[in-house]
Amino acid sequence: MSVDTRWLTREQLAAWVRLAAVLELLPTVLDSQLRRDAQLTHFDYYVLAMLSEAPEHTLRMTALAGRTAATLARLSHVVQRLERRGLLERFPCPEDRRATNARLTEAGWQKVRDSAPGHAAAVRDAVIDPLTPEQITQLTAISDAILHRLDPDGSQAAIYERYDDPVSRNADG
Amino acid sequence: MSVDTRWLTREQLAAWVRLAAVLELLPTVLDSQLRRDAQLTHFDYYVLAMLSEAPEHTLRMTALAGRTAATLARLSHVVQRLERRGLLERFPCPEDRRATNARLTEAGWQKVRDSAPGHAAAVRDAVIDPLTPEQITQLTAISDAILHRLDPDGSQAAIYERYDDPVSRNADG
Repeated sequence: MSVDTRWLTREQLAAWVRLAAVLELLPTVLDSQLRRDAQLTHFDYYVLAMLSEAPEHTLRMTALAGRTAATLARLSHVVQRLERRGLLERFPCPEDRRATNARLTEAGWQKVRDSAPGHAAAVRDAVIDPLTPEQITQLTAISDAILHRLDPDGSQAAIYERYDDPVSRNADG
Repeated sequence: MSVDTRWLTREQLAAWVRLAAVLELLPTVLDSQLRRDAQLTHFDYYVLAMLSEAPEHTLRMTALAGRTAATLARLSHVVQRLERRGLLERFPCPEDRRATNARLTEAGWQKVRDSAPGHAAAVRDAVIDPLTPEQITQLTAISDAILHRLDPDGSQAAIYERYDDPVSRNADG
């Protein structure tokens, strides 16, 4: 163990152990609700939701990987599973035959609409309702700072930057 | 879709999509560093680290599950794998023969000491260094509020309450 290791201070450790517990517990809670009520994992839901917001419910697989913060290998595996369930379909991209598109089926679109309210309620219950409006604003800035470090070249930025940030916009205007 | 669904406001959505991206990206980054440098997943590391801080490097499996926020089934699977690698060993609890203890081996203790500096550096780099001291304090309070909702009966509280919270203590004194 190197003698010049910079350990965390007590304040930093207090924040980190709590965030680590959130990282461990929160995905399980969100997964459980979606598995129970919609037979989807949280990641399945995210894939379907991203397609549901795209024009003609269609995205290139590479774009879908960016929006879901997933590797193409992980995404392919999940998309294959969702395709077997009839919730989406894959087809060659008309503009570039080497690329593959994923498109929500009618059943997939229905699945998103049916499961969105329950998922929104779970997010509100676990994350939004316990926080004050001020803490919501703080959480946006804190997550932005961490994401800037995790994803410095912005390759995953489509996930969050596509949502307007009303906080900074208000500050500007 | 029920008409009385309470959707998230724009401010709440801005915070949530960013936190969701952190939940997706951060574990992967921490896992990658530990896999590359120590051939451990983040969860493996956490199990070994919790044992390394216990008296005689030993904990009952049920206590270890509590401290790692894992189900006993998931923990058993991981502990079996770590035991095959010689990093810990299981034995019947002397005070209660129906219970099982897990104890770090000398090789496991060495593994924790060797891998702790690299893991601390990864946490600092991804989470601590991008935040101001004020944001560290905010993150502690925000995570506490979310954890209180995720874990209302405090069954997992051992993970984070065992660490002093210098922030609230200072506020009291």
